[in-house]
Order: sequence, then structure tokens, then C-alpha cells
Amino acid sequence: MGVELPTREKINAAAERLRVHVRRTPVVAVRGIDLGLDIDNVTLKLELLQHTGSFKPRGAFNRILAGNVPAAGLIAASGGNHAQAVAYAGTRLGLPTEIFVPETIPAIKLARLRQYDAEIRLVGEYYDEAREASEVRAAATGALVVHAYDQPAVVAGAGTLARELAEQVSDIDTVLVAVGGGGLMAGTACWADNDFDVVAVEPERCPTLHAALGAGAPVDVEVSGLASDSLAARRIGQIAFAAAQRAGSRSVLVTDAAIRAAQVTLWDRLRLVVEPGGATALAALLSGAYEPAHDERVVALVCGANTDPGSVQQG
Amino acid sequence: MGVELPTREKINAAAERLRVHVRRTPVVAVRGIDLGLDIDNVTLKLELLQHTGSFKPRGAFNRILAGNVPAAGLIAASGGNHAQAVAYAGTRLGLPTEIFVPETIPAIKLARLRQYDAEIRLVGEYYDEAREASEVRAAATGALVVHAYDQPAVVAGAGTLARELAEQVSDIDTVLVAVGGGGLMAGTACWADNDFDVVAVEPERCPTLHAALGAGAPVDVEVSGLASDSLAARRIGQIAFAAAQRAGSRSVLVTDAAIRAAQVTLWDRLRLVVEPGGATALAALLSGAYEPAHDERVVALVCGANTDPGSVQQG
Repeated sequence: MGVELPTREKINAAAERLRVHVRRTPVVAVRGIDLGLDIDNVTLKLELLQHTGSFKPRGAFNRILAGNVPAAGLIAASGGNHAQAVAYAGTRLGLPTEIFVPETIPAIKLARLRQYDAEIRLVGEYYDEAREASEVRAAATGALVVHAYDQPAVVAGAGTLARELAEQVSDIDTVLVAVGGGGLMAGTACWADNDFDVVAVEPERCPTLHAALGAGAPVDVEVSGLASDSLAARRIGQIAFAAAQRAGSRSVLVTDAAIRAAQVTLWDRLRLVVEPGGATALAALLSGAYEPAHDERVVALVCGANTDPGSVQQG
Repeated sequence: MGVELPTREKINAAAERLRVHVRRTPVVAVRGIDLGLDIDNVTLKLELLQHTGSFKPRGAFNRILAGNVPAAGLIAASGGNHAQAVAYAGTRLGLPTEIFVPETIPAIKLARLRQYDAEIRLVGEYYDEAREASEVRAAATGALVVHAYDQPAVVAGAGTLARELAEQVSDIDTVLVAVGGGGLMAGTACWADNDFDVVAVEPERCPTLHAALGAGAPVDVEVSGLASDSLAARRIGQIAFAAAQRAGSRSVLVTDAAIRAAQVTLWDRLRLVVEPGGATALAALLSGAYEPAHDERVVALVCGANTDPGSVQQG
């Protein structure tokens, strides 16, 4: 397909670049019984503790640091988390930064975005409209486009999460990862290289990978629902699709109710505030959409927390 | 003084007893610059991820499992977090359990308490009144008293946190720990055994250790303020006072405003919801009440999260 998939060497190089810019996020092992699951343990990778509250700085910093940045600086489009990551990176590195976000961005994400030294442009209802506007603008200014998921350096940066995880947890069988555009899934699958299975988890109402695997190629889908502020790319990335195909990854679908229940459980049992997209991977396990063997060593990536903290309580 | 201080052997034995009952909580290293501090790194021990959202199950399980439990079961008094821990332990172990809590217990702690198979008695305004009522009742029923802090087995259980921390982080210089009754501080100091310094942090409005160190013995103090639901014992425990004296620990005082600012920072920079008592140790660092050397390796215990998650936002 002509798509370049990051190698472990590329991910190693990314990890070296990111060392001072990205936080090493911890893992916690939780007994299955604590979550009502017939499984010994589940490990949660607490990437919500990353700078800006999501995994996105990994890809953003790697894209920016892997090459030269033009005088026009950085440009990006995002449903919110990638926007924060690029704005954060631009501010930390002292680079001019322009960010396009959809008008549906949650207030809490917009408020955080305004804390950084970046120009914010509100365009369209969903991510893709903001992305199209950003591309027109990038062609005019010559700024470095930091894509939210579909660039090799962004995927390699995201892959550093899996590399770190493999240092922290031995003998992983399966990693559950939420998919929107698929950058984190792609990075995880490229690092895994068959050492462990990567299971993609998608909201029923944002099934980009599911549709692509059915059609044999990335296709546009309708996107909506609880997690659409972070997982509502309309089309899976080319890199993510190629990575999923090569790895033979499954796409498991979860309902909005299952995502909501996972958010409530994460607060009730672990005192973690997690946004819908961040709780989506675990939702597959809690809802039974993914059923592991009793002794399967499963890791769920808990990858974002940019939500109103008051929203995670039951009721 | 005739006070028995737990040895490392006792703490090792506690750790073995607790192994299947207590979660190994993670640590995360945070750059000083992320917190506005002139220090390389601060490590946070994320004990808020413990069962029931605080460190209290460590002491409770160890007290219960270290001896025989009478047919009358368990009895405890608590400002809230210890109550949850004992109710959780009683439920997990299938033991009859009676819990005395002050009427000022936050609604969120009371609601959680009611999820367990325990009898709840609401008595008095502060912890000590509930404790006195529980002692009268215990004398009548013969139930095993699980004290919130001032029993050797409870302190040894709390000490397992420091033991775990020492496995996770090498070369610690200083551990900052919040003090109410002082059980966690005592357990930490008993494990430390001069391997690292233990600095006690207390709200200005709950200065039990500070007053005791000034007076040369535990004395009653007035308690109030933001963290009083978890740190408002009126008098430091005998064990805690002896441990602090032996270790030469300082007591550092922080204002309610500093505690509140630490809660806001923990949400803003790490997406952690932390209750006032849980943020008190870090507050000493953020407010400058404790000033480490630039290269000092400092750990702050983040030991509780039983608060309304919506309360941690700025404004």
C-alpha cells in the first residue's frame, strides 16, 4: 500500500527524543474481582497522567522534534486532546502554533487550550472539518502540519507508550486500545510486532476501523455519541489501517452505555476521572464485548482525562 | 514511654498478610518545573488508588488478620476513610462490623459507607466523640476494636506503604506525609529507620503533632478547617508521637488555602482528584512551607481521594 509503518528502531528513536518532554506514566494491577470480572488481574496503563491529560504529547513532540520546524511554526487540527498536546509542545518549545478545533469542543478542553501560547480557530462540527480548514491554512503559511494520527512520526511517538508499557509489565498477552483515527492503536501494534495481541475498541457510533476492516479499505463513517469529542475521526488513518491489517487486529465495538459504565467504575473502584474516549478500552472488558481467558494477561490503556471531573459520578 | 513501635520485621509480616487484600499503588515522577518548583523531580505515591480511596485498608486489614476476631466481629470509629476501610475489610472477610462516624461526615463518604455490610452509627461532631461512643459499645459487645491509628498492628499495616515505596523508588531523601492521628506518619517513620527523613505535614487548623512536639507530650488541640474530615483527630496518637520523637521528625504547618491550591494543581497538572487530607503533604512543597534542596529526592504521599470530584476545579 506504500504506507510506512514505524519500526521498533523508529519507536526507540522517538523514545530518546521524548525523554525529557514526556512523563513516564505508571501502571496499576487491579484484581478481576474488583471489577466484577472472571480474570485474575487487569493492568491499567495510566496514560491519563500524561502532560495535558492524554497520550497525545507523545506523537506531537516526536513529529516536531524529528525534523526541522519552519519559521511559520506548527499547525494542527484536533477534536481537543491533540490540540492541547500541540499547543503545550509549541509553548514548551517556543514555537508559533496555530490550532484548528471543531466548534463542538467541550468547554473544559477549550478553556485548557486557551492557557497556551497558541492561536485557536474554531471551525465546523467535527474533527474532519477543522482538519480540512487547517490544511488550506497550512498550504498558505508553510507551517509544519502535526497530524492528529496519520503521520509516521506521530504514530512512532504514540508507540513509545507501548514500549514503556513493555518495560513495566512482563508477559503481556493482550492490549486493549481505543481507536478514533487509530494513531495509538497503530503505534501499539507496531511496537508489539506479535509479542502481544492488540485489540482495537471503538464506540458503536464511531466505528472507523470496524468499517474499514469490513470494506477492505478506509471508508468514511457517520460519527456521534459520548466519546465523539476524542474518537470521532470520520475515517481511520491509512497508517492505522495498514497496522491493524498487518497485525490481524480485531475491532470490538462498545455502546455508549458501556463507556459510561466504565467511567463510573473507574471512579468508584480506583478514584480515577477518565473521559469517555479514555474509558473506551476498559469498557470492552467490563461489558463483555471482549472476553479474555481466565489467565490472560490483559492491559487496558486508560488514555485521557479531559472531562468535567464532576461528570464521573453515578446518577 | 512503654509504647511499642513496629519494627521492620513487623512491617514485613504485615506486608505478607496484606498481599492479597491490598493494592500495590503506583508512583509517578513529576518534574519540579511542572509544579513551579525549583527541584529536579518530585515523586508522588498514588495511594489514592488503594481500595476505598485511601491508605486506611493497610492498617485495618493488618489489625484484623494479625490475631483472632471474636464472634462479635469488628468495631471502629472514624472521620470517614478508616470507616470505609474497616467496612470494606469486614465485608470482604465476612465479619460483622459496626462503625461509628461523626455526623459531619461528608455525604460522599457516608454514601460509600452504606454500600458495605456494616452497621453505621452517626455520633457527635468530630472523630473523638464517635471514638468515645465506639469504646463504650466495644466494652459491651466484646468486638475487636480496629483503631484508626493508635494500635501497633494498624501502624505496622500503614508502614507497608513505605516498604512498598522503598521497593519502587531508590535513594529517597525525604518523604512528606500528612498527619491527623499520625498512623501513616508513624508507619512511614518506623519503616524508614533513618534511611530517609520523614516530614510530617499538618493543616494549621489540625496541628496535633505540632502541639505535642511543643508540649513534649500528646495534648488536645482545637481542630477545624478544610481537611478536618480526614485529619481532625484532636490528639496525636501515642505511637505516632513516640515514632516522631525517635525519628526526630519535624512538623510543617500548611494553610487551608495551600491545601486547596494543591488540590487544584493535582487536577490541573496530573488529572488527579485528591481530597484535602490527601493533598496536604504536597501542599507543604507547593506552598514553600517545606523547602527542599535542589537535588533532594522528595516523595509526597498522596493518600486519599474521597471527595466530590467536581470540587477540584479552579474557581
